[in-house]
Amino acid sequence: MHAVELIQKKRDGKRLSLEELKFLVHGYVQGQIPDYQMAAWTMAVFFQGMEPEEITDLTLLMAGSGDTLDLSAIHGVKVDKHSTGGVGDTTTLVLAPLVASVGVPVAKMSGRGLGHTGGTIDKLESIPGFQTSLTPQEFISQVNRIGVGVVGQTGELAPADKLLYALRDVTATVESIPLIASSIMSKKIAAGADGFVLDVKVGRGAFMKQEAEAVRLAETMVQIGTLAERATVALVTDMNQPLGRCIGNALEVKEAILTLKGQGPANLTELCLQLGTEMLLMAGACSDAGEARRKLEDSLQQGRALAKFREWVEAQGGDPQITEDLSLLPQAKFRQSLAALKAGYVQEVDPLALGAAAMHLGAGRETKDSVIDLAVGIELKVGEGDYVGEGSVLAEIYANDQQRLTEALQTGLGAFRIGDEKPPARPLVYRKITAEDV
Amino acid sequence: MHAVELIQKKRDGKRLSLEELKFLVHGYVQGQIPDYQMAAWTMAVFFQGMEPEEITDLTLLMAGSGDTLDLSAIHGVKVDKHSTGGVGDTTTLVLAPLVASVGVPVAKMSGRGLGHTGGTIDKLESIPGFQTSLTPQEFISQVNRIGVGVVGQTGELAPADKLLYALRDVTATVESIPLIASSIMSKKIAAGADGFVLDVKVGRGAFMKQEAEAVRLAETMVQIGTLAERATVALVTDMNQPLGRCIGNALEVKEAILTLKGQGPANLTELCLQLGTEMLLMAGACSDAGEARRKLEDSLQQGRALAKFREWVEAQGGDPQITEDLSLLPQAKFRQSLAALKAGYVQEVDPLALGAAAMHLGAGRETKDSVIDLAVGIELKVGEGDYVGEGSVLAEIYANDQQRLTEALQTGLGAFRIGDEKPPARPLVYRKITAEDV
Repeated sequence: MHAVELIQKKRDGKRLSLEELKFLVHGYVQGQIPDYQMAAWTMAVFFQGMEPEEITDLTLLMAGSGDTLDLSAIHGVKVDKHSTGGVGDTTTLVLAPLVASVGVPVAKMSGRGLGHTGGTIDKLESIPGFQTSLTPQEFISQVNRIGVGVVGQTGELAPADKLLYALRDVTATVESIPLIASSIMSKKIAAGADGFVLDVKVGRGAFMKQEAEAVRLAETMVQIGTLAERATVALVTDMNQPLGRCIGNALEVKEAILTLKGQGPANLTELCLQLGTEMLLMAGACSDAGEARRKLEDSLQQGRALAKFREWVEAQGGDPQITEDLSLLPQAKFRQSLAALKAGYVQEVDPLALGAAAMHLGAGRETKDSVIDLAVGIELKVGEGDYVGEGSVLAEIYANDQQRLTEALQTGLGAFRIGDEKPPARPLVYRKITAEDV
Repeated sequence: MHAVELIQKKRDGKRLSLEELKFLVHGYVQGQIPDYQMAAWTMAVFFQGMEPEEITDLTLLMAGSGDTLDLSAIHGVKVDKHSTGGVGDTTTLVLAPLVASVGVPVAKMSGRGLGHTGGTIDKLESIPGFQTSLTPQEFISQVNRIGVGVVGQTGELAPADKLLYALRDVTATVESIPLIASSIMSKKIAAGADGFVLDVKVGRGAFMKQEAEAVRLAETMVQIGTLAERATVALVTDMNQPLGRCIGNALEVKEAILTLKGQGPANLTELCLQLGTEMLLMAGACSDAGEARRKLEDSLQQGRALAKFREWVEAQGGDPQITEDLSLLPQAKFRQSLAALKAGYVQEVDPLALGAAAMHLGAGRETKDSVIDLAVGIELKVGEGDYVGEGSVLAEIYANDQQRLTEALQTGLGAFRIGDEKPPARPLVYRKITAEDV
């Protein structure tokens, strides 16, 4: 077999067999196939696409290219939730204890990553004492004991994906649905869950700007999961404005706690209920969606989800008192309000502009060696469709540096567009994609 | 400027500016842009194509990336002929002295190359004493003195093309009309002629199998030449059977001499007259095609072309006696006839099968370090449409190794298909493409 023939085959729109993909993926990881041949192949994939079975073969080959997590020692059906990423996405911090509180185990491996704020692991580390580096044994035993655990990535999951992603990043082949889908799913599959609930974000703050694209990505991932014999469902959800009201690490922990207390933003609460419903159904904990949703709502109302959060924080060495005293979370030195320049309806709250402002304050990583400032960020006081008076507070900016605060106020102001008409409401969830749809 | 943005731009079907192409080509030659980025870009070009001005920019950048030949010291309009390559293509050896014999200077730099037989330079080296390594001064002064000179490549012409071609070869991006056209034209332009007559081969023995593709390649090269302000014309000519009757280095020299004596194969003679007519018109030596053709025919008939050939051979140190005594050319030890297994009309004479047989006999190079056997090859005795009896001689095989001779007889036999019906005649020249057509 020669790599050049496989590139040509894909270039000419043909499907590669499992053996052929194995030759490419193994050869690449082992350094026998050079970057330039993989670059040509990925560009050919960009133009010609891949068939569902072919994408699944690629995904499983990448998933199997490094360490894999074996969660079989955890009792019950393990369902993992994954979001394709947006601004102010705090769902995992709410969902993990919420779902666990109704008896469905949540064993999640999470990342730090690059972006406007840190990843889930960074956010959790805002909680004083919280440990995210557990051994696999500690992790599994904790989930079996209390039903929930979230740890940072251990070992090397899907190194083939890591290599390929780095190459795609410098060869303009990131924007390929088959390659995006197989990249995400290879890491998820290597992390060992039995099923996946995918939150595919769409809108100006998401990677996918158009609904049609997001639906295609969701469909492709559901196809991969299904062909790989993992239950998979996807919700295509709105990211035209930030989810919830907080952007920043400790701020998002605060928001998660408020949500678990029933005092969170409506869109975040609703999305957690919908994603949680899918997780319960997939785990077989409920027979229908109505029952699942009622269980989750009860758990929130009766404080069981919050209690599970406290138990979880304590189990991983964190201070559970934060739920009673939010001032135990890292606090920024400076705080300043962003005021509306004129009265009217909020037409747009641009998540990218706010994400950039949060990043500039120090909430996120620009390179993998950046140090995150857990305390800084932005707390929105209004959302799309709200009416504001001139001088009303649009957001509070939290900063540890006066200069950066000033700059963030300017950037942040550009995120809000205010007009005379009340804009039409936007759906939170656009589509649900199940195995039957693909 | 970042390479990844330029790859993306091409991927998205946009035209790169001169500055952008300069960044890529110069960066690549200087080692600042890695192979994997150029590989992704060439694959994007494969799918998205390039605009005529863009191809011309690329061509001129590649032409300017190394040494260039300055032929301005040669009096008159210098017209170069280039063939895209086929089997048994001996035209240069006939055309150079033929055109020179009517007063149009021919200053040609030629290659060795890989293929079924050697390149023009290898063929010329079959002539005892013939020198192909002249200094530019010797070369120019020879052309000014006797009107003709053919030398091997000196210096490094179009190193950017050399790098890019090697990369395309291992990344399945050879078959891209803009990249093929710019590769050919960059070397031609660097070699310094004022105008080009292109012989674009089409058919089973050519790189372009279909007439439509060959026409597109011809049109693209004529566009490049025209935009680069070099007169350019292309003939799309048949390569479904070998051109002429000989395949092999010394054998093709013999065939060229016979053609200059008016005893050559009809298709080779005719193609040389048509290509020569274009060269004369381009050089401004005649006012119309009829006059040009008559001049060339007269020169052949009256022995002036043959005399020019002798003068040329002598000027480059070769033995002009070969024109009188063909046995002075390298002779093979073994010779055996290939006989028809049945009677009938020759339907096909497959140039690829014969090329492979010639290569196996040692007439060509498999790698750039292969040593060519100048004496071996194949001499056809029949062509498409000829009637043969059972046992008639189809070809003579010349070999220096008994084992290889036996194998070549077998391969060679597979090249001939004999049937009951006389096949329809095929044109020699399918199309002529001029600047007005593009």
